[in-house]
Amino acid sequence: MITAQRKLTPLSFTRVRFQDNFWAPRLEVNRKATIPHIYQKLDETGRISAFDLQFTRPVPSPIVEIFGDSDLAKWIEAASYVLMNDPDPQLEAQLNQAAEKVAKAQQPDGYLNTHFIVAQPEMRWKNLRDWHEMYCAGHLIEGAVAHHQATGQNTLLDALARYADHIAATFGREPGQKRGYGGHPEIELALVRLYHETNNPRYLELANYLIDERGAQPHYYDAEARARGDAPERYWAKTYEYCQAHVPIREQEKVVGHAVRAMYLYSAVADLAHEKNDQTLLDTCYRLWDNLINKRIYLTGGIGPSGHNEGFTEDYDLPDETAYAETCATIGLVMWNHRLLQFAGDRRFADVMERGLYNGFLSGVSLEGTHFLYENPLSSAGSRHREEWFYCPCCPPNVSRTLASVGKYVYSTGDEDVWVHLFAGSTADLEVGGKAVRIQQTTHYPWEGTVAFDLKLEEAQEFSLRLRLPGWCQAYHLSLNGEEQAVQPDSSGYLVLRRQWQNGDRLVYEMEMPVRLVWANPAVRQLQGRVAIERGPLVYCLEGVDHGDAALDRIALDAQAFGAACKAEYQPGFLGGVTVIHGPGVMIDDADWDGSLYSTTKPQQKTVEVLAVPYCVWDNRAPGEMRVWLRGW
Amino acid sequence: MITAQRKLTPLSFTRVRFQDNFWAPRLEVNRKATIPHIYQKLDETGRISAFDLQFTRPVPSPIVEIFGDSDLAKWIEAASYVLMNDPDPQLEAQLNQAAEKVAKAQQPDGYLNTHFIVAQPEMRWKNLRDWHEMYCAGHLIEGAVAHHQATGQNTLLDALARYADHIAATFGREPGQKRGYGGHPEIELALVRLYHETNNPRYLELANYLIDERGAQPHYYDAEARARGDAPERYWAKTYEYCQAHVPIREQEKVVGHAVRAMYLYSAVADLAHEKNDQTLLDTCYRLWDNLINKRIYLTGGIGPSGHNEGFTEDYDLPDETAYAETCATIGLVMWNHRLLQFAGDRRFADVMERGLYNGFLSGVSLEGTHFLYENPLSSAGSRHREEWFYCPCCPPNVSRTLASVGKYVYSTGDEDVWVHLFAGSTADLEVGGKAVRIQQTTHYPWEGTVAFDLKLEEAQEFSLRLRLPGWCQAYHLSLNGEEQAVQPDSSGYLVLRRQWQNGDRLVYEMEMPVRLVWANPAVRQLQGRVAIERGPLVYCLEGVDHGDAALDRIALDAQAFGAACKAEYQPGFLGGVTVIHGPGVMIDDADWDGSLYSTTKPQQKTVEVLAVPYCVWDNRAPGEMRVWLRGW
Repeated sequence: MITAQRKLTPLSFTRVRFQDNFWAPRLEVNRKATIPHIYQKLDETGRISAFDLQFTRPVPSPIVEIFGDSDLAKWIEAASYVLMNDPDPQLEAQLNQAAEKVAKAQQPDGYLNTHFIVAQPEMRWKNLRDWHEMYCAGHLIEGAVAHHQATGQNTLLDALARYADHIAATFGREPGQKRGYGGHPEIELALVRLYHETNNPRYLELANYLIDERGAQPHYYDAEARARGDAPERYWAKTYEYCQAHVPIREQEKVVGHAVRAMYLYSAVADLAHEKNDQTLLDTCYRLWDNLINKRIYLTGGIGPSGHNEGFTEDYDLPDETAYAETCATIGLVMWNHRLLQFAGDRRFADVMERGLYNGFLSGVSLEGTHFLYENPLSSAGSRHREEWFYCPCCPPNVSRTLASVGKYVYSTGDEDVWVHLFAGSTADLEVGGKAVRIQQTTHYPWEGTVAFDLKLEEAQEFSLRLRLPGWCQAYHLSLNGEEQAVQPDSSGYLVLRRQWQNGDRLVYEMEMPVRLVWANPAVRQLQGRVAIERGPLVYCLEGVDHGDAALDRIALDAQAFGAACKAEYQPGFLGGVTVIHGPGVMIDDADWDGSLYSTTKPQQKTVEVLAVPYCVWDNRAPGEMRVWLRGW
Repeated sequence: MITAQRKLTPLSFTRVRFQDNFWAPRLEVNRKATIPHIYQKLDETGRISAFDLQFTRPVPSPIVEIFGDSDLAKWIEAASYVLMNDPDPQLEAQLNQAAEKVAKAQQPDGYLNTHFIVAQPEMRWKNLRDWHEMYCAGHLIEGAVAHHQATGQNTLLDALARYADHIAATFGREPGQKRGYGGHPEIELALVRLYHETNNPRYLELANYLIDERGAQPHYYDAEARARGDAPERYWAKTYEYCQAHVPIREQEKVVGHAVRAMYLYSAVADLAHEKNDQTLLDTCYRLWDNLINKRIYLTGGIGPSGHNEGFTEDYDLPDETAYAETCATIGLVMWNHRLLQFAGDRRFADVMERGLYNGFLSGVSLEGTHFLYENPLSSAGSRHREEWFYCPCCPPNVSRTLASVGKYVYSTGDEDVWVHLFAGSTADLEVGGKAVRIQQTTHYPWEGTVAFDLKLEEAQEFSLRLRLPGWCQAYHLSLNGEEQAVQPDSSGYLVLRRQWQNGDRLVYEMEMPVRLVWANPAVRQLQGRVAIERGPLVYCLEGVDHGDAALDRIALDAQAFGAACKAEYQPGFLGGVTVIHGPGVMIDDADWDGSLYSTTKPQQKTVEVLAVPYCVWDNRAPGEMRVWLRGW
């Protein structure tokens, strides 16, 4: 029977422990530097004391304040995950204190939003379109679920369940209820988590209502605006595409509007498809995914080219230098693809997830963990630089919670199956058919493509081990206990080894990882005559600092010459230890140029050695130029 | 003796009559279509009735209203020039009516600004930095001078002289006077014109004061802001570079800020250099000119890359697609270079003047004269299109007055010299040494480089005929009455023929006009790996409509192949009659592309026939792509 339910179950990040030189240091930095840094910034900007409900003026501004609760909520979620990985009494105390402070701010009727309690009580639930009450509620719910999972404490979870009850009573299709839904999706997926944490189906039904009602006519946001005395036509974004509320979700054909909103919404749609066994929702996801992946995504897994709407524009509109590509949007992309991956274990979704994680997500945080990128352009003239904090600081705590839980993207299990989606030196404790299976990955991935899997079993057991053959991988070898295995990928793109596994079995999976040169579809006008460098899951870029601070626009690649001569080389002391790629390029030479602005004499070219570094570690030195898409032929 | 005074005197446009197929039709369209069109739009938008001082609300908005007077003023100037070329009783009546209406609005104390009389009388002269009182006064003065020249009537001239008297009484260094000057230069050059028209040196002194005082410390705009209760630090533009008031003019090293303001200011500085025989002012012009021409100007003569400040940014920052390059700024560039040209007859200034006139200026108006470009980018993805009018409609009447008087750029005279700066089929009536000289140019310039000069003299006369050798011209031939002349350009770049000229002498000047490929300085990062096409004074571009509406980014030129095979061909019925350039290019082919967004297979290229049209006639068809700088090698 075909169902729209998931065949795979992701393995919790608590069961995966990294021992590699890629993720493990990032998690360590997240724990030691990012978590305290974010807490300090939240504190400095009044986002924690806001829950004392004592502030008299917007902190630091009304618009920021309106979504300020979500920032502490994401820190609570992140800190909870950090605790689940590494117990830390001091952090736990700080976390519990924050959780109690949030819970204490709750009003007798269950309502819980500091801005609308203190600053604008008369505007509660009056502008779902623009303000962020449901969004903040969603992040608080996710924080509460995580806090409960990490500490076993109920204070915050109970408070948020009461808040969810309040929302469920306020919104819906019953007489006296508002037919509203939040302009910034987030609560929908949070409610599904709350449902699982509490086993109360009311929250699933509320999520279902919010998804189904979205975009219905007569349009709630029109009516809501008129009720405020505001003309709907004056909506700044001009179209409800901005918040994916232009038509009901099942009628949406293209990914549009604000990219983070889109990804959070689609993630909830995928959740509901599973929970409700609703193929129409899953088909909607697939349709939107096709549009995104074939026409609207950056090579880095960045999405949303425009700063104007923090989101999508037109098919094939992918400017590199002005790419918005918000860090949170790539996080949302990973969330959505992780959900889609669980339905049938189709490699396509794992490919996107991996691309996002290793590139456009990780670029969002510096190696030392306290400087962030909100936007992730694919080219910079040198004026961009990581910042400690933002006016709207949604990205830093989002990065932190994602890093702390990144282990969940590695494995999934089924009744008789183990899926290996990602590769990283790590130890994972799974259960297959009720029996414990430990898988040790030994690898220098993503710097090398060879991964050894050592299995520890309580007893010999038959199951299918499914290894993802990455979309980028053109050749591979597989050996079991030293014996070459001839395995072709199945239709889902995984190499399936079904056998009676023995304790101590060793599987060695060698994915060839040559340097790849990549071109963009001729329909992408901004990238014509350009070429990018990739290797394994990583997109590479050039930085000005490695090229004598020359303008990178002056450098071009002869793809054939570069491809033939380039070398990948691991440099342990460089940028935290990365594999760089170097090879010959040509550079426009100004030695003979006469100083005039224009000339009928073509400028000379000289040969230069090009050095490419992984995109995810760019801007970890002095600010300077950066470029992914090089001129080339 | 070296002086900073002009050795050349421009020949009035009233002495030059075009009979060509380039300028003559443009002037005709200006007279028949543009002048009535602008009048109608001024009328519709309340800019004429504003002078009845009856409006109650800003028309159409306060910020537009603040400079609204200048729009009618420029129409008055344009209409006056049109009349001076072609008498037209109906237009003259309309013009006189407008002039009387303006004069009638004058207040008893001489003040004359509709916005500050009607809407904000309490704010008169309170914000010279941001508002446009002096700017409007300047344009009204220019309009009044032109009206007086065209009609001999004094009404408007007298009114503006009284207004100038009021300004001279209000501003200056005497006790009780304000030490102010306008944020948008314009009045300075207008006052010099008023001085010449009235012979009243008070106006020259006022202009001189305004130039000298600009940028002095303590800064007037600081004091003025504080007097309004406004903190100077809150100035939106953040720096007085925006209005070239950051330091005194003689200390300015680079062209900065709002481009139109810069050009109008520098034009006045050139005027004052001459009037005051002030070498420091002329040196300032040369210094700023060097910076502009070597580092900050577009190939088209467009200037000011940024929309943010409608002006300049950094050296070598010349993005093509986002180029602001306001039409008015190129007009100002032409004005300034025309003034600099008169000092010593140096070709460099005529080259810039010609480049601006034939490209970035003329692109500002459609062939039928009623649609305009405010911005003149060097690339468009297709979303740009000419408009009938603008929220801020400074450009249309500026184009109109410039076209109506474009004849003034062709010739200059001296005691024993005639300078031919520009080439166009035309008849010009000059005086040399007090004797009439008629010069008939017969040519298909700019489509062909051959110009025949037929001289009609009252009697034989010795003088130097100085023919400009354009900077773009690498080879030329000159013959007099059929006899080849071997003449080398002098140090100013002109071919000097000094002789006893006879009535009926015929000089034939053949400037070779091959297609040129042009590259940008390697320091211009946005133009690396790109090439542009020029021929004669014209910059060429590709339009999407001539290339199957293909994305022009997919087209590239192999410069050597294109240069060897391209052809220039005059097409009389195309775009009003233009010489097109066609030749072989290569185009990225999507026939074999598999539909994916990215691929490790390099896209194929196919050969295409490229058709280039003059930039000045782009966007005279359906909206579509356009590109000056093509990918190329």
